[in-house]
Amino acid sequence: MQTVKPIPNERQALTPYVIVKDAAKAIDFYKKAFGATEVFRLTEPQGSKIGHAELRIGDSLLMLADEYPDFGALSPSSVGGSPVSLHLYVDDVDHLVERATSAGATVLRPVKDEFFGDRIGTIVDPFGHKWQLATRKE
Amino acid sequence: MQTVKPIPNERQALTPYVIVKDAAKAIDFYKKAFGATEVFRLTEPQGSKIGHAELRIGDSLLMLADEYPDFGALSPSSVGGSPVSLHLYVDDVDHLVERATSAGATVLRPVKDEFFGDRIGTIVDPFGHKWQLATRKE
Repeated sequence: MQTVKPIPNERQALTPYVIVKDAAKAIDFYKKAFGATEVFRLTEPQGSKIGHAELRIGDSLLMLADEYPDFGALSPSSVGGSPVSLHLYVDDVDHLVERATSAGATVLRPVKDEFFGDRIGTIVDPFGHKWQLATRKE
Repeated sequence: MQTVKPIPNERQALTPYVIVKDAAKAIDFYKKAFGATEVFRLTEPQGSKIGHAELRIGDSLLMLADEYPDFGALSPSSVGGSPVSLHLYVDDVDHLVERATSAGATVLRPVKDEFFGDRIGTIVDPFGHKWQLATRKE
């Protein structure tokens, strides 16, 4: 009998699932900005909409898909904002903010040292998702 | 010389950061619904607002805070929805959906077997955040 792990080994329990307008373009952006690698992409047989995709960023997964309004899957521009941001630890936050803005992101709060020992900057990606990029300093 | 790891060992690179109305109540809910454990809570010295909290759910972190409109930190009810959902692998999705609804969540899509081998249900928590609860079956 085959044993299936209910929580797959290769993925963390909790993964943010972001909805974007033009998921193919968003995947390109996340690769360029954050060095994401593509794990999986399910494109509609007709057309170019992506129903589900998975990227690896550092040790973590990010799931994403195009908008599907019938299922309540709406991107930040359709919702009018986002109540969830994506907190990402990286080796060098200054470098990554530069890289992300070169790729099209906008700085919301510039990088600075916080009292709890992390250096943090906040950006908005071209698809409206907010990222808190952080590097632990002490 | 002390060496500091820029990406802390005990946390994954990518963590969703959710904004809620009444973070103290949300922490209670996530404990009851998902078996979350509290890692950290920073409460304002004056008043009861939580500026930052961290919960562990399974092997993952969830960050959360109360609304801070001046910083663009708004919950789903203020934003009018969410373009990010939280995908959570658990040992027994049927049991967890039951537990979450008992704690106050609402079922958005009932649990069912999906063609890719996962059994998935979608709920909305009392604070407006969407969760896709999943258990791998094959």
